[in-house]
Amino acid sequence: MSSPIRRVAIVGGTHGNEWTGVYLVKQFQQFPKMIARSSFETITILANPKAIAANCRYLDRDLNRSFASEDLANPNLQGYEDQRAKEIAAQLRGVDVILDLHSTTSNMGLTILPSTPDAFNLRLSAYLSQQHLDVRVALGMDCTQDAPMLRSRAQSGCTIEVGAVAQGVLNAHFLQQTEQLVYTILDYLEALNQGKSLTVPSSLTLYQAIAVVDYPRDATGNLAGCIHPQLQFKDYEPLHPNDPMFLSFTGETIPYQGESTVFPIFINEAAYYEKGIAMILTEMRQVECPD
Amino acid sequence: MSSPIRRVAIVGGTHGNEWTGVYLVKQFQQFPKMIARSSFETITILANPKAIAANCRYLDRDLNRSFASEDLANPNLQGYEDQRAKEIAAQLRGVDVILDLHSTTSNMGLTILPSTPDAFNLRLSAYLSQQHLDVRVALGMDCTQDAPMLRSRAQSGCTIEVGAVAQGVLNAHFLQQTEQLVYTILDYLEALNQGKSLTVPSSLTLYQAIAVVDYPRDATGNLAGCIHPQLQFKDYEPLHPNDPMFLSFTGETIPYQGESTVFPIFINEAAYYEKGIAMILTEMRQVECPD
Repeated sequence: MSSPIRRVAIVGGTHGNEWTGVYLVKQFQQFPKMIARSSFETITILANPKAIAANCRYLDRDLNRSFASEDLANPNLQGYEDQRAKEIAAQLRGVDVILDLHSTTSNMGLTILPSTPDAFNLRLSAYLSQQHLDVRVALGMDCTQDAPMLRSRAQSGCTIEVGAVAQGVLNAHFLQQTEQLVYTILDYLEALNQGKSLTVPSSLTLYQAIAVVDYPRDATGNLAGCIHPQLQFKDYEPLHPNDPMFLSFTGETIPYQGESTVFPIFINEAAYYEKGIAMILTEMRQVECPD
Repeated sequence: MSSPIRRVAIVGGTHGNEWTGVYLVKQFQQFPKMIARSSFETITILANPKAIAANCRYLDRDLNRSFASEDLANPNLQGYEDQRAKEIAAQLRGVDVILDLHSTTSNMGLTILPSTPDAFNLRLSAYLSQQHLDVRVALGMDCTQDAPMLRSRAQSGCTIEVGAVAQGVLNAHFLQQTEQLVYTILDYLEALNQGKSLTVPSSLTLYQAIAVVDYPRDATGNLAGCIHPQLQFKDYEPLHPNDPMFLSFTGETIPYQGESTVFPIFINEAAYYEKGIAMILTEMRQVECPD
């Protein structure tokens, strides 16, 4: 991005039971100086107020899967999240960078999920990996500007996922870590705008999603097993062929049957049972960071 | 209890988003031999099917606070959980021992909460503490036979709480631990009925609830802080006067202002925010185990 950043949006409560983002955005709204920078405007959005009030992920539909352009243009979609997506998309018009604050029951520490793998986002990700040693960068399978996630409404920015955090709780550690990460990003954007020199590593480690794995299920679709105890909380650790993956309810170990080593993430994320996702397999890649 | 045990009830899904008990009871219903013992009948109850289907704690009212005798006798209480409580109370008539399987987002490991502190329950608790070294025994503030918890519908038995587990996920470790604990209890009851000699320790460590602590809140009742990072996941560890307890959203540490050392449990339990409970303070007591 050669043109200056004019407007940044910090979004929380896209999922109403992920409190880290909800409470950070409320704090930023109460103390706007914390996120004010001289060279751009910062706006805040509490994305799903009804889900926040009900302490659930969503009412009618996952808001963070409701931003595909064709859905936004479809006047027949009138559920609560359909309407919120249209309102939020309008608010995000003219926004250059989106930071969407989430949490996960998976043990993903501090994860950056860039909206697209373009040069701007890769450099930002590399910078954050250097500044916060426990930041990891993961690229979803659907990282285009027409993906259905909220973050896709701007060219630049990312989702921030922190965990393991249970839904409907505040964890001070992750609240502080996310807050610091937001400030680091805002300071980076400010320095960019001001033409200050920033030390960005020449490459970064990227976890590229390559496949989704569902739980073992019986003929009627009910769960027939769970994450193997040896894999629970082992996000980002190597999973080798034949390593234990699931434990069936009848006590059998179900191994990973792929042929190459992968690095699972979103292992046992509570909200993904209904999506048929027990984990997402990634490949670890060393990526050059463009100037 | 000098008379034999005739009937034992294993209950899961009293809270619909605590999956450990839900899936164990489903397994026991599929493989009833696992919980069959020769000297008594074992029944299973999935307590809150609509909450299980909706993956929430309850629909209208917390089922595990709906068993007070006056509520059960009140024909005007017609919410879903009011009705379920009446149906379950009828099923539990003639049941000698109740095991109610729960999970918690607090780091409580394997916790036994006896229905009453009578000789039978204390001996059972002491036996379990000996058999499973990581079992702890906690006594709530409301442990009478007319308490509103489901477990109060029989003289003997306990709630089993395991965690930290997020709501709406299966954790294999705690699933296995709870299952083993249930078998140990059933075997103990069988041995009692059969007059076999059981080695029960002469005393046990009991964590007696003495006070409930709410989160810091602002004038309108909204959260003004969260559990201090140094206290998060420190259930059953000593909390001394002036130790950090909460962290306010403006960054101040709020210390524990009591005068004696306590042992907090249910720290940051997701379901307790709405109840105004940030943690429950207990005293550690060494209790003689009656013969």
